[in-house]
Amino acid sequence: MINGIENGYYHEINPAGFGVAIKAGKVLFSDKSEFQKVEIFESELGRVLTLDDLMMTTEKDEYHYHEMIAHIPMMNHKNPKSVLVIGGGDGGTVREVLKHDTVERVVLCEIDGMVIDACKKYLPTIACELDNPKVEILVQDAIEYIKDKKSEFDIVLIDSTDPMGPGEGLFTEEFYTNVKNSLKEGGIVVAQSESPFVNKEEIKKMYNLLKKVFPICSTYTSNIPTYPGGYWAWAFCSQSVEPLSYIDERRCREITKTCKIYNKEYHLARFALPNYLKEIL
Amino acid sequence: MINGIENGYYHEINPAGFGVAIKAGKVLFSDKSEFQKVEIFESELGRVLTLDDLMMTTEKDEYHYHEMIAHIPMMNHKNPKSVLVIGGGDGGTVREVLKHDTVERVVLCEIDGMVIDACKKYLPTIACELDNPKVEILVQDAIEYIKDKKSEFDIVLIDSTDPMGPGEGLFTEEFYTNVKNSLKEGGIVVAQSESPFVNKEEIKKMYNLLKKVFPICSTYTSNIPTYPGGYWAWAFCSQSVEPLSYIDERRCREITKTCKIYNKEYHLARFALPNYLKEIL
Repeated sequence: MINGIENGYYHEINPAGFGVAIKAGKVLFSDKSEFQKVEIFESELGRVLTLDDLMMTTEKDEYHYHEMIAHIPMMNHKNPKSVLVIGGGDGGTVREVLKHDTVERVVLCEIDGMVIDACKKYLPTIACELDNPKVEILVQDAIEYIKDKKSEFDIVLIDSTDPMGPGEGLFTEEFYTNVKNSLKEGGIVVAQSESPFVNKEEIKKMYNLLKKVFPICSTYTSNIPTYPGGYWAWAFCSQSVEPLSYIDERRCREITKTCKIYNKEYHLARFALPNYLKEIL
Repeated sequence: MINGIENGYYHEINPAGFGVAIKAGKVLFSDKSEFQKVEIFESELGRVLTLDDLMMTTEKDEYHYHEMIAHIPMMNHKNPKSVLVIGGGDGGTVREVLKHDTVERVVLCEIDGMVIDACKKYLPTIACELDNPKVEILVQDAIEYIKDKKSEFDIVLIDSTDPMGPGEGLFTEEFYTNVKNSLKEGGIVVAQSESPFVNKEEIKKMYNLLKKVFPICSTYTSNIPTYPGGYWAWAFCSQSVEPLSYIDERRCREITKTCKIYNKEYHLARFALPNYLKEIL
């Protein structure tokens, strides 16, 4: 069986020999960009976005990912004004970031313009804030963009694809060092860091690099129904800010009302990890 | 597509229109008991047990479920001596319960003897403690068994199949009342309570009944890679014991060393629920 849609089902079998199967309806968009295959199809989980036949997001479970990548670091910062999102062309992370009324500027640096255009057209509930005047969209390689940035961002969110394909260069020591330099005093980086159950080797490699670069490097996890193993990890990195050292009570109270997952207790619980993941890290 | 093995893949599509696909190797056991189809096959996740073509357990991820159903209530009890496991014919829950050196007696009440026999033969790492002299195995309907039991158990674990098929009668007010009566003073019941993402209606119905019977009824969740949505809930019920009101430090320290998931911080974090699940409850 190959990944992708065949006989009415989308399949994605991960390296651990199992994966997700989704009853697939009409294919709304399918094309090859300079970087990857971009596809959007209908399903009982709403519309589904895949890149190179790997699950990116579905309308019915996208909030599991987007709330977690955005609100954990945003609530942990006293006054996040300037935010960089790397990847994240579907717009879900930008949408969550903009719930924080402290934010003045969001830069979305996505290498593939086709992803942005397709999501604006076919995933409007996810891409809905991409035209917000606070958002600057750069269709550009983040590796180049970040090179000369100094003390510019309060929060950097690495909302990338996997460490193979177009996202590969976003998992290197050089890139992480440039990201660190782009942070303002008190800045926080969060990077998606794969499935603890399925991608043990990738996680080990990634955190070894992150720990070389950032004096503070922690991990949090949450459920994502359609991702490998139903379980995902994010790296929380900073020069000076410990995770859970601060939660903005006012924003937390207000934003929780708009969330399907995020609340304060759930936030506080996210850094408690299972033994097998602690051993990997 | 039907659930079960076809063309080298096991599929289980849940009512939400998606599900798990597992590359299936050799089928080691396949038979119909009086109650259900029992099947065990090889895969990259180790051997897989399915009942009526629904995923019960795999050798590589079984500890996600068994550690959570057993240790959360067991650690919360000061001196659990007598334990009843309802269902759980694979033996994984019994294995975890017996890690607690306070335990003098475990009754396993499983309706289907074929499940026990097949698991003893083909899943020895899971069924390994079923011959322990502390264990009494009853091949019997738990609905009948529990009827006249009064103040007999410190812990009751309802390790059942779903609320359809042979497990149906284990999701009724009458059954829960009988379970309550079987508890000693300070006793705790934990019942598997389905996937928060996939089985919202079933969860609502089940907790409505549990709350009629038990003055204390709480919910905890954890990741299970091969279960619907990769996310599972358990009900924690008692007449007098609040969840997290006690954790046995000595047993916690010792047993954590033997676990792939369970540790104290992870335990403390389990009752923090996402907003959508709080709304259902």
